[in-house]
Formats: sequence, structure tokens, C-alpha cells
Amino acid sequence: MLTVNARSTAGPGEPFQATTIERRDVGPAEVLIDVKYAGICHSDIHTARGEWGETLFPLVPGHEIAGVVSEVGADVTRFSVGDRVGVGCFVDSCRECENCRAGEEQYCLEGETGTYNAIGKDGRPTDGGYSEKIVVDENYVMGIPEGIDLDVAAPLLCAGITLYSPLKHWGAGPGKKVAIVGLGGLGHMGVKIAKALGAEVTVLSQSLKKQEDGLRLGADHYYATGDEGTFESLAGSFDLIVSTISANVDFNAYLGLLKLDGALVQVGAPEKPLDIAAFSLIQGRKTLAGSKIGGIRQTQEMLDFCAEHGIGAEVEVIGGDQIDEAYERVVASDVRYRFVIDTARLVS
Amino acid sequence: MLTVNARSTAGPGEPFQATTIERRDVGPAEVLIDVKYAGICHSDIHTARGEWGETLFPLVPGHEIAGVVSEVGADVTRFSVGDRVGVGCFVDSCRECENCRAGEEQYCLEGETGTYNAIGKDGRPTDGGYSEKIVVDENYVMGIPEGIDLDVAAPLLCAGITLYSPLKHWGAGPGKKVAIVGLGGLGHMGVKIAKALGAEVTVLSQSLKKQEDGLRLGADHYYATGDEGTFESLAGSFDLIVSTISANVDFNAYLGLLKLDGALVQVGAPEKPLDIAAFSLIQGRKTLAGSKIGGIRQTQEMLDFCAEHGIGAEVEVIGGDQIDEAYERVVASDVRYRFVIDTARLVS
Repeated sequence: MLTVNARSTAGPGEPFQATTIERRDVGPAEVLIDVKYAGICHSDIHTARGEWGETLFPLVPGHEIAGVVSEVGADVTRFSVGDRVGVGCFVDSCRECENCRAGEEQYCLEGETGTYNAIGKDGRPTDGGYSEKIVVDENYVMGIPEGIDLDVAAPLLCAGITLYSPLKHWGAGPGKKVAIVGLGGLGHMGVKIAKALGAEVTVLSQSLKKQEDGLRLGADHYYATGDEGTFESLAGSFDLIVSTISANVDFNAYLGLLKLDGALVQVGAPEKPLDIAAFSLIQGRKTLAGSKIGGIRQTQEMLDFCAEHGIGAEVEVIGGDQIDEAYERVVASDVRYRFVIDTARLVS
Repeated sequence: MLTVNARSTAGPGEPFQATTIERRDVGPAEVLIDVKYAGICHSDIHTARGEWGETLFPLVPGHEIAGVVSEVGADVTRFSVGDRVGVGCFVDSCRECENCRAGEEQYCLEGETGTYNAIGKDGRPTDGGYSEKIVVDENYVMGIPEGIDLDVAAPLLCAGITLYSPLKHWGAGPGKKVAIVGLGGLGHMGVKIAKALGAEVTVLSQSLKKQEDGLRLGADHYYATGDEGTFESLAGSFDLIVSTISANVDFNAYLGLLKLDGALVQVGAPEKPLDIAAFSLIQGRKTLAGSKIGGIRQTQEMLDFCAEHGIGAEVEVIGGDQIDEAYERVVASDVRYRFVIDTARLVS
């Protein structure tokens, strides 16, 4: 057992406190990772506040982890001490169901093991990346190529793959018109990745407040959805729309922006059901779909792709004592575009 | 001008009356078709009853037309007098938009010209197949191969292609598990076609009332959706579900029956919006889609496929004086599985 510094919350809405947690000894197939940076994902906030069902408290969130391997188990073959690595939203899965066998562990039929707020195979609650060190099975660890700094790499492990996966799955690329709805932590990764994939990229944001940013990040066009004329002038325009928002907007209006055979993919999860008129789908053979992060293999592919294209997240680096304030600012959409905790300042 | 016998309704809910209508002279690119049989589609009823927006009365419905060419215009190249032919839901389109150019005229961006209840390029309202003859541009006419009788061929022109198109588009075939929701005029075609495409076919029907029929038509399995255990035992089973029903059921439950990357395709159009939980789509990267008939090229492909596999609709042939009664019985789901009007008995 290894005692390491961490930041945890004791209950819904309780402030984050400096604490220590136990990490298990490194098993034969496991690596010990010195966490360098951990991104703050909106899911962390939902979980810490008990908004997504039951939370196991005390909670150490963090599933956008970038760090360096400091110890490897006897049977580890993929990593060596000193390697730059990342860990995303899950640290294990059943490995036997058809989805796991297909490399889509994020859809494990037995339920993948969350990086935090889950029970690991050792029977203990999992603790996430708001901590100095973490022990993970090497099969659930990705290499972070040289060429991406670890602070801007951390958010790729959730925000990055959440956008990369549907963009690849639904064929974003040259000749395709892609819209990203919402320019936040997820959306800004979508713009960068869709552009690097070769698509023509449009941002659909509530207002034009972040227009300059959107264009700088690579968008070709930027429209305000608050302006009703937008839905008229862009009708039938897009091959693919990836929606990162969790508000219950008029999704039929967004479906109206798709071409024949176009797809509207939700990666954000609105609280209430989506009201979809059947004719919004029938007229134009349109697809409404959902997508959730990506498998281990694809997450590695995404990291390699981002390194090749010089893509990292836009981050604001904070210390552990700023987590509560950061949560407030994320909820208020007051971050461009991802908070990342520097573990060198985790408890000091 | 040609005066021909027909059956028309004068207003919403008015009984069908024997009447005569004018058919235009056969243009250079047009054919005159002696209608032999016309299927009764639920859309006919919605339109005749004014349930789908404004209807142009008097109305002669009918967009499942099977007949024989009796005259051809000077420039016609695809058909000769005596050819067995069919006409479906539309008789024209803009021919220039990207969807028309792609052979997906059913999604014409200018709006395809309905076989009835539309205004044709000659500026006159179109009249459908509840009539002795019809004049149609040869580009919107399909050949009906030998080997399918015209009475059982007629419903293929709407019900058949409405199922064939999504089954092909979403890859129904060997190794795929396909469910057809609802065993009515549409659903029974879905069972036959999906089976002929090589898929493993399951019928999901409210009760087991038609189970024997379903299995006889080619289904491998048959389950009652009224039995809640069905949704539990079939969870995660299907690659593709084609829903022909227009009731507002719990579509999240149906999405739960899909495998990873599975698709639920609506060809029926429930009146109220579908309430879709985002997580029903996100968990398993699932698709909710819609589909509408098919293009001219694919409708011809479907007819050739059906002839090759000996597929026709299951029909109950009626005379023109039985249309009102047939409408009542369709609404009451009391038909196995399609009424077809024999024009030899249209007005007698």
C-alpha cells in the first residue's frame, strides 16, 4: 500500500479538502503513474454533487489524467518507467463480452470500471486523478506521444476522445460539413479535431460571444443559435452535427439542419427526454444518435492523431485549492476551455 | 383528354363515390397505364380524412398501382405497350437537386409530386390509382417482372419499398438480427423481405394473435410487446429494428433491445413527438432514424428482388364499392394484410 496526497469531497456540495488515500501495491500487469495533471470534466461535478445517482463518498474525482510511469509490474510489456501516459474514464472492464472483445470497452456489457466512483476488481472504491499517484492495469493506459505537453494532453482523455470517436465513426473528413453545437470543454476539442480531420467546420453557439475564439481554434463558420434566422439559412447544410450541450433545446430544429442521411449525434446528455417528431427523421432519412468516449485502442489512436496535428486542449492550470472555484466557473460556462489541476500544487 | 372511371371522396369522412376524371393526353415522355390493381395504404386514409394537413378534394387516392401500358409517347424508350408496370407514391420530382440526381427522388428538395393530392407540372391536381387509367412520365414508372401477379405486386410500390429501403440501407442480411415492430400492411412485407435478404427475423407485435401468420410469412421468432418480460429477455439483441407502428409507445424500451451500434428505424409516424432519453442513445452508440419509401432505381431493384424471391403482399381483393368498409377495417387493424382494389370492379 502506498499513501498519496489527494483532494476529496465528503458529500454533495461539500468543499474539496486535502487528504491522503491508499493506492494498492502495483500488481504484475499494472503500472504506477505519477499524476502530473488532471482535467476537470463536467461529469466530475455532476458526480461530486450527487446529480447522477448515488455517489460513493468521500470522492476523489478525475478521469482526464496525464502523468509519468514510475513503477511497472513484472509482467508489464507496453510501458517502462519514465513513459508519458494517460488514463481516461475507465480503468477496467470485463474483457470478455463482445463489446470488450471488439475494443469498445466503453460499452462493456458488464459495465466498465469507472476511474472514480466505482468498485474495482479488488473490491475497493476507485479514486481518480485529483491525486498524486494512481495504479492502473497497463491495458487501460494509453501512451502520450512526445509533442503534446501533459497539461494540454490531460483533457484529451475524456473531452478529446468524446469528440474524436463520433467524428471518426460518422465519417468527418474532407468534403464533409460538420457542425459542433456548443463551444465549451467538449466543443472546442470538436472544432480542433474536426478541422484536423479535414472537414468544413461550423460552430453553432448560443451567441457570438466566443466567435473570435471559435475561428482561431479552426472553425470555418460561426453562427448564433439564438438568432432564428440561423436555422433558416443553414437548413439542409450538414452531414454531421455533434451536439455537446446538455440543455433541452429544440432538437427538431437541429435535425432540420442536416442533409439527406445526415446524423445528429448527442454527446451531451440533457436531463429531460428529447422530443423528436418522427417526420424530422423520416424526411431525409436522418439519424439521431448518441456516443460515449471511446475504446482504449481508439483513445490511443486519438492521442497519436492529436500529437501529429499539434492538438491539445486550451487549458487554465490551477492548484488543488482552486477546485471549488473552478467547479463554480465550469457551471457558469466561465472557462476557456478546460481547468487542469497541476498536482505539483495539489495540496500546498 | 381522356375521361376515365374513378372512385373519389368529396371531403373528410365523405363516402367514396363512382365518378369520372380527366387524364391528360399522353406526352412524348409519358405512358398511359391501364390500372389493374390499386392497394389501399394507411396514408390514403389519413389524407382522405384530412388528418395530414390540407387535402385537395375531390380526392382520388391510390399510390400502390399495378397495371399494363396501353399507350406510349413518341420519346418513350423504357416501356412498350403491354408491359406490366407499377407506380408508387410520386409521379415526378425536380430532377435537378442533389437528392434527385442521387436517385433519391423521394427526398427531392423541391418536394416530389405526390401520385395524388399534389399539383402536377401541368398545374392540375394529381389523381391516384383508384381509377381505370393514369398517365405518368416514364422516368417515374417501374417495370413489374413476370412472376409476380399484379394484385400482390401493387402493395410493393409503397408498403414493399418502405420496408425494403431501410432494410437495405441499414444492412439487413446474413448474420444480422432484425426485428420488425408491428405485423400489418408494412410489417408483413418487412418480414418477407428481411427473411429473403438472409437476416434472422423477429416480429415484435402487441400480442401473439398473429403469431402463426408471422412464422408462416418467414419470421424466426415472434414476441408480444404487451408482455414486459419481452423487453428484458431480448435486451441488447438486435442489429436493426424497423418500426412500422404509429402509436406513441416507449421507444426507449425498444432502443434497449439494440446491440452496440444498432439502429431503430421509424417508418411509421406517431402523431406525438417521440420522447427519447439521451442515455438510451449514448449507452451503446445507438441510432434512431427515419426512412421514407425509396427512389425510383431502388423501387425497381425491390421489384426485381421480390420477383426473384417469389415475394408479393398478402392481399384481400375488393371492388370499388367496398372502399369505405375497407378503410374502417384498416383503421381497426382488421386486414391480413393489404386491401387491393380490382379496377375491373371499380364502379360496377
